Amino acid sequence: MGINNLLKAGFGRRGFLSGSSLLLTGALLGAAEETKAKLAPLTADPEAEPDPQDKSALLEDLVTANHILQDQGIVDGYGHISVRNPANPNHFFISRWLAPDLVTVSDIVELDFDCVPVNGDTRKLYSERWIHAEIYKVRPDVKSIVHTHAPTVVLMGTINEPLLPVYHMGGFLGTGLPTFDIRKSFGMTNMLINDAARGKALAQTLADKPGALMRGHGGIAVGNSIMHSVGRSVYMKVNAEMHIQAGDRKIETLSPEEAHLAEAGNQEFPKDWDMWKRKVMKS
Amino acid sequence: MGINNLLKAGFGRRGFLSGSSLLLTGALLGAAEETKAKLAPLTADPEAEPDPQDKSALLEDLVTANHILQDQGIVDGYGHISVRNPANPNHFFISRWLAPDLVTVSDIVELDFDCVPVNGDTRKLYSERWIHAEIYKVRPDVKSIVHTHAPTVVLMGTINEPLLPVYHMGGFLGTGLPTFDIRKSFGMTNMLINDAARGKALAQTLADKPGALMRGHGGIAVGNSIMHSVGRSVYMKVNAEMHIQAGDRKIETLSPEEAHLAEAGNQEFPKDWDMWKRKVMKS
Amino acid sequence: MGINNLLKAGFGRRGFLSGSSLLLTGALLGAAEETKAKLAPLTADPEAEPDPQDKSALLEDLVTANHILQDQGIVDGYGHISVRNPANPNHFFISRWLAPDLVTVSDIVELDFDCVPVNGDTRKLYSERWIHAEIYKVRPDVKSIVHTHAPTVVLMGTINEPLLPVYHMGGFLGTGLPTFDIRKSFGMTNMLINDAARGKALAQTLADKPGALMRGHGGIAVGNSIMHSVGRSVYMKVNAEMHIQAGDRKIETLSPEEAHLAEAGNQEFPKDWDMWKRKVMKS
Amino acid sequence: MGINNLLKAGFGRRGFLSGSSLLLTGALLGAAEETKAKLAPLTADPEAEPDPQDKSALLEDLVTANHILQDQGIVDGYGHISVRNPANPNHFFISRWLAPDLVTVSDIVELDFDCVPVNGDTRKLYSERWIHAEIYKVRPDVKSIVHTHAPTVVLMGTINEPLLPVYHMGGFLGTGLPTFDIRKSFGMTNMLINDAARGKALAQTLADKPGALMRGHGGIAVGNSIMHSVGRSVYMKVNAEMHIQAGDRKIETLSPEEAHLAEAGNQEFPKDWDMWKRKVMKS
Repeated sequence: MGINNLLKAGFGRRGFLSGSSLLLTGALLGAAEETKAKLAPLTADPEAEPDPQDKSALLEDLVTANHILQDQGIVDGYGHISVRNPANPNHFFISRWLAPDLVTVSDIVELDFDCVPVNGDTRKLYSERWIHAEIYKVRPDVKSIVHTHAPTVVLMGTINEPLLPVYHMGGFLGTGLPTFDIRKSFGMTNMLINDAARGKALAQTLADKPGALMRGHGGIAVGNSIMHSVGRSVYMKVNAEMHIQAGDRKIETLSPEEAHLAEAGNQEFPKDWDMWKRKVMKS
Repeated sequence: MGINNLLKAGFGRRGFLSGSSLLLTGALLGAAEETKAKLAPLTADPEAEPDPQDKSALLEDLVTANHILQDQGIVDGYGHISVRNPANPNHFFISRWLAPDLVTVSDIVELDFDCVPVNGDTRKLYSERWIHAEIYKVRPDVKSIVHTHAPTVVLMGTINEPLLPVYHMGGFLGTGLPTFDIRKSFGMTNMLINDAARGKALAQTLADKPGALMRGHGGIAVGNSIMHSVGRSVYMKVNAEMHIQAGDRKIETLSPEEAHLAEAGNQEFPKDWDMWKRKVMKS
Repeated sequence: MGINNLLKAGFGRRGFLSGSSLLLTGALLGAAEETKAKLAPLTADPEAEPDPQDKSALLEDLVTANHILQDQGIVDGYGHISVRNPANPNHFFISRWLAPDLVTVSDIVELDFDCVPVNGDTRKLYSERWIHAEIYKVRPDVKSIVHTHAPTVVLMGTINEPLLPVYHMGGFLGTGLPTFDIRKSFGMTNMLINDAARGKALAQTLADKPGALMRGHGGIAVGNSIMHSVGRSVYMKVNAEMHIQAGDRKIETLSPEEAHLAEAGNQEFPKDWDMWKRKVMKS
Repeated sequence: MGINNLLKAGFGRRGFLSGSSLLLTGALLGAAEETKAKLAPLTADPEAEPDPQDKSALLEDLVTANHILQDQGIVDGYGHISVRNPANPNHFFISRWLAPDLVTVSDIVELDFDCVPVNGDTRKLYSERWIHAEIYKVRPDVKSIVHTHAPTVVLMGTINEPLLPVYHMGGFLGTGLPTFDIRKSFGMTNMLINDAARGKALAQTLADKPGALMRGHGGIAVGNSIMHSVGRSVYMKVNAEMHIQAGDRKIETLSPEEAHLAEAGNQEFPKDWDMWKRKVMKS
């Protein structure tokens, strides 16, 4: 099934899905076997290769996603989003060093897993692009990654409480997100994921989960598409806000099974995307 | 008394009231007898049949309400509002599957109580339209229903505390809203009210109240008109915000009698509607 | 000293001050004798009579104030602001029944202390206009009154804690605002100040203070000018927000003497007015 | 190294750095010896003298900073920002008495350390300009100062808890900011820093830190450039908000060494500036 057919099937221009990963959409991948399988080397899938028009649409969606993340309070000057190159799964697209709200198509660079621009671009890059490279390496199911600085998500990563699904829109939070504490592997640092070793350690903490918290820093949301990672980053924030607001009160969160079933129902947040997009297009 | 006369009498275009239900406006319906009476089969009231111009105005108000609910933080990509068809009380108008902020008149569909479009429309519909159908079935006094996702309302439904009227604008909250917990009737689910049985159970929990909370999901506000259900959904949220913000502090809420008298005084929030409408028209 | 000279002296167009009340500007009036003196009958001060141009400017400022109160979150569809007629201190200007954000000059009515329009206007009026009439009657120093529905101010009136000055901008809060509980005088009500007796009781609770809280309802801010009452209503809200946000933490509030000195320094919030006005003019 | 070369080196127009202070950028100055050295008299550095075009750019950036501070919730009608004159380090630029959001280039005045306009300007000035003069006197490394009224920063100064770095963007908060309590030196006051003695006492409390809290008043953020002081004032607020929101929960803040390393990595918040600037240019 080619990308154009997927587009026609109603997925719009917000990402891409290979035939096999499509089957996994919305599912919680939990089994160790599946995780190992995903660590197998990646090769480009000729069926998924986008034509130039599709690539252009993908990059436009990446730009829109940058603006949405700013508008929804997920990033400020910092934080970023990337999308895997459907034509070469060992590459990904991400903005050069720039506040997300200012990103245009001409700011997008294509990086390999050594975080080097494939076209010799010499512009300054995000020091934390290793977050993206190292997760894409070990998670073939992941097509897009958001690094969030939403304050309540930051806060959740600094208090000793799990971020659980307060309501069905947070079903993907399942049994709680893992928290990455950089001290445990690297001692005293500047807190940044600015080399391969740190990126790898973060990816190991993430494992097969849809996201992770980072102590004293922020969080990660991954997804099957740009729309999916953006949606998860937004509802991760909404759930974190509700959790923090609850204060001392006990929240009756979704049970693991309810979360699993709700996540399957939520799919990839397609209703939100067009609304969020229209909002940033108007402003 | 025809709908045009009601309109002239100052109810504007925000809804409709049959002659009999008009007498109940603003009253708290609490007696079991009345509830049973409301379960009698509904028939169209020829007197209430709107002419095409009135129907057009009603649908425009439904569109405006969709935008207001987004602007006031009651819905995001999810949540919805419906209005009963004044010409056929066994039908209701609601948007097709779409984020409320994007709804236009052409997106409105007319559904019967089996949740089937009466004109053969094949577009995707809200899976939770059963909320609306099952409440309209057993509550003839209800002319409009809002399904809210306001975060503080969601939160109130997940902590074990009643949502009481903090101030007179929440008078309709009376002695507290009932909370629907889908687990009690259906065990492990995706949390959605996506069939008749779940809708019926929710309607039974709602009973004769102006609204209900839904654990791990959101809430419901019903009213005598679009304006009424919208106003209740907004002040349900404002009261929930105050309740949550109070933290450990004891709130001296309205007494049941104060709430009853305040609700009679608040009527249907007509002052807010024009203000909210102007705000979304400008943006 | 005529109003035009006052205007030239830098008070702008935001209100008016008679020669004697000018001396009291910024002072905290605490002595019982002064309170009694203020209860003496009022007569128009010919010196203070505005020419038509000044009246027009005053009404424009009242309209602007209505919009500012909405923009700053002090009112929603409810709440209101009035200004005493400088040419006849037994009259005041206030909008007819309308959400503050929608008010234009043509919506302003002039009421006497029986809350009757002086020009025979038959349009619907605020049921709570008695708040204004009864305070103006007994507080000759008061030239403008805001009835606030700011949620954190509502909340402060429902928890058993005084609203104290958290910082110097709340200096006017002094030793805390009195709380009016309508139950104490009137038993079970709809919570509204909708007749002379209730207005009088509220004015008695207010006494010589710059504001009051109202259990289950909202609050009152009074001032020497429109700008003054608006500024007090905004900083009453800011202080209430800080108080509520503090949760269980002990706030080291201003001491009564610090509050008194800070209030003298704050004057009438002239720096804010032009900023707030520009914001509503732009939108 | 002249200012133009610095500008070409990528610092943009947001400030200026003399050759020597450049080396200190991002460093935490902690040693008492260094503090004493900074108290030596200041002389103009001819190399740093801006040409008229650079001065114009500096003042434009100061105006932009005023608008950014309003837009980001750091100031309302009150609070202010200044920048040291690169051509004469004993002078600084600041707006005349005006709400920051209304400031234009023609409102900027140049003051000496006696807080007197150097060009005989007779317009009303901020009574608290002494904050700026007295800090510039003793902190040659400081090129720009923000006086913040962000509510959560105000609140942090009134509860007995240190403002620590919740995440890496607050690295400059190090081991916590000092709190200035005006009562300790001056007894009962109007809380304002409106003379040299109060300014000097505040500067002594600030010492060599990047900022300070002021009980019952607000806070101070200093920096190597306009961009730097603005960035610090914004992230001081974000950290304060997270601290307050945490309520009773224990926050695992950055360790002193992590904070030190993160601060070195954060530099001067250059990614935020262009984003914040674009936002105020659009509105």
